[in-house]
Amino acid sequence: MTSTRLERQVAFLVEIDRLKQVLRRTLLADGARLENSAEHSWHLAMCAIVLAEHAADPGLDLLRVLKMVAVHDLVEIDAGDTYAYDAKAQAGQHEREAAAASRLFGLLPEDQAAELRAIWDEFEARTTSEARFAHALDRFQATLLNCSTGGITWREHGVTHDRVLGRLAAIKDGSPELWKHAIRLVQECVDSGRLAPPPAA
Amino acid sequence: MTSTRLERQVAFLVEIDRLKQVLRRTLLADGARLENSAEHSWHLAMCAIVLAEHAADPGLDLLRVLKMVAVHDLVEIDAGDTYAYDAKAQAGQHEREAAAASRLFGLLPEDQAAELRAIWDEFEARTTSEARFAHALDRFQATLLNCSTGGITWREHGVTHDRVLGRLAAIKDGSPELWKHAIRLVQECVDSGRLAPPPAA
Repeated sequence: MTSTRLERQVAFLVEIDRLKQVLRRTLLADGARLENSAEHSWHLAMCAIVLAEHAADPGLDLLRVLKMVAVHDLVEIDAGDTYAYDAKAQAGQHEREAAAASRLFGLLPEDQAAELRAIWDEFEARTTSEARFAHALDRFQATLLNCSTGGITWREHGVTHDRVLGRLAAIKDGSPELWKHAIRLVQECVDSGRLAPPPAA
Repeated sequence: MTSTRLERQVAFLVEIDRLKQVLRRTLLADGARLENSAEHSWHLAMCAIVLAEHAADPGLDLLRVLKMVAVHDLVEIDAGDTYAYDAKAQAGQHEREAAAASRLFGLLPEDQAAELRAIWDEFEARTTSEARFAHALDRFQATLLNCSTGGITWREHGVTHDRVLGRLAAIKDGSPELWKHAIRLVQECVDSGRLAPPPAA
């Protein structure tokens, strides 16, 4: 029996409920527990709505940014969350995530599968204003949570100031203003002894 | 010292992180735990993106719907989640939520506070196509999760078929197509003995 268009859409929407159980390495702002990727995606949507005026490209398409942040982590349902500071885990990450994208978006009617896959590919490629801003928000929001909890997860994973600054550099492309603010927040963590300086050479 | 515009925006974004700890009465699709209002808001955004073609008004503004579902539950940070089938808890709900809206949106720069408050007021008033569709999605998504878990929370709270149908009626205004589908899903729960018929008179 062929599923109707609406049945396929519903099957996709029930399947992606699983994103609520994919845990990130970031704690909530009050440190109560790890954040999951679904609530993180909501938080990015709120960041996009509130911070759009700080985007490098003032003419960017906010609707496209919101679609992008909503779908950007869906692939983690199959591929899991890959910690930004774990180089080993990153081996093969793109292939795993591309396979996940094919399976998940493939649950949808063809036209929608193609549309959402194109938006996810655009996010990954970072060549448009919208993708650069979405990436900037992704790192800016993690910085807000990490600084709110006093850098606990950075210390747990032995991440030092230089590596954090390296990650923050990607914010600059999407929003120089948010990049400067993130650097100030991280410097406060260093000044208060919560984030370690680079190891001595 | 006066906070800069960006500092006020960041203070708001960190404060609303608390929505991730507001629990609803709905279980995740696999029944693992209760859903929280932040991940629920993300799920509604995905529903809006995928199901927009079924809206009663085909010309509706999807960007406005996405902003609306992103902010619609923020007031629960102060006012808590009010169970749809608990009439007692609903007493004073609007006043509690309006006070919450004033405090939370008031953290933002004035122009943004006014914009997001207007979007929340519009959601509450249900007089626009966008608000009616957002409400339809809110109830449709809860129906998907409740039917996925075999109506466990309905049984726990003694909710019967007639009351569920009463709640679903609000979907019709925003999307007759989604309303018909929701009625079919709920009927399957009745047929399989997972949702009780109305009590005998």
